[in-house]
Amino acid sequence: MDASALTNLQAAQRLQQQLHFILEIDRLKAVLRQTRLMGVARRENSAEHSWHLVMLILVLAEYANEPTDILHTIKLAALHDIVEIDAGDTFAYDAAGAVDKNEREERAATRIFGLLPEDQAHEFYALWHEFEARATPEARLANAADRLMPMLHNYFTDGGTWVEHGVTRQQVMGRVQTIDDGSHTLWDFVQSLIDDAVAQGMLAP
Amino acid sequence: MDASALTNLQAAQRLQQQLHFILEIDRLKAVLRQTRLMGVARRENSAEHSWHLVMLILVLAEYANEPTDILHTIKLAALHDIVEIDAGDTFAYDAAGAVDKNEREERAATRIFGLLPEDQAHEFYALWHEFEARATPEARLANAADRLMPMLHNYFTDGGTWVEHGVTRQQVMGRVQTIDDGSHTLWDFVQSLIDDAVAQGMLAP
Repeated sequence: MDASALTNLQAAQRLQQQLHFILEIDRLKAVLRQTRLMGVARRENSAEHSWHLVMLILVLAEYANEPTDILHTIKLAALHDIVEIDAGDTFAYDAAGAVDKNEREERAATRIFGLLPEDQAHEFYALWHEFEARATPEARLANAADRLMPMLHNYFTDGGTWVEHGVTRQQVMGRVQTIDDGSHTLWDFVQSLIDDAVAQGMLAP
Repeated sequence: MDASALTNLQAAQRLQQQLHFILEIDRLKAVLRQTRLMGVARRENSAEHSWHLVMLILVLAEYANEPTDILHTIKLAALHDIVEIDAGDTFAYDAAGAVDKNEREERAATRIFGLLPEDQAHEFYALWHEFEARATPEARLANAADRLMPMLHNYFTDGGTWVEHGVTRQQVMGRVQTIDDGSHTLWDFVQSLIDDAVAQGMLAP
């Protein structure tokens, strides 16, 4: 095989791997979250949730505590749930499911991001870890968006999964406190929303 | 009212408008496209489709014909379908629906983006027009992604809506030719995919 034929073959393989990944992640549309939608009587799937996070970041990035790279933040938000294709969505207040969550997700990340060409596989795997570690401004903002969105859904569906699962103020506070790491402004808003949710009986005191 | 109280009130109003928009666009999850998903027996909604476009752009941006701003491209892709909340999804090969499509979508853009604070309303409205006009490298790449994705869905669901609606090779070619404006590499791939779809009887010759 001459050099240019080899280059063509490598290019074709690269595109094939990328398309394989793109087709594979179609399955995120079948992963259901606990969250109920506002306008339709069904649960939310993780793909449409990920889109909503991208939009939320585009609209609310101005409230980040620190200078933040928006493209990088969007990458983190758009791909952080892809591991759920294999590992499933673990409900935020499910203590049993949380036990082996990391292990399940780690295996999923290795398999699914591993479909990509090596450079992109490494990049996406690293981005997924970065989101989970919350140690960069971008990861803090992406996590804040990810915690804020279901608060809005629950509050604007008369308590939604809070009521359904008898969630308490303390449980929510423990979970969403990290919003403060991403944005003090959004955290102030969330605190008043929680106060109001308790006052209206959507959250157990 | 003193100056700082006014500033606080304006800031609160701004956040309120932004949250209103974020809640409103939840409805894009209820807009159904013709496309059928690969792993689930249901039609695709426009929100999860928009997420898939974001991922496709992140993975395939290297094939753009021109130097392209990826964040800008993602903005175009993530918001271009939001007008469908009011205007509905017009099937690509529906000539009757196409007649007043622009007018319906223009009204939708004015209303929905108009929920945002003025600066963001203008930005999003301009981005939507930019996507539609396909006159920038970013709009060309975002449009290429938007045309490529349903090709993949149809091909990998044994012809999907092509078979369902008896779509011809010529109709598809007319619609997806713009992929070439965004990426010659992806266009080459799409041409071989169309050839194969015709050979396999998924597309009428």
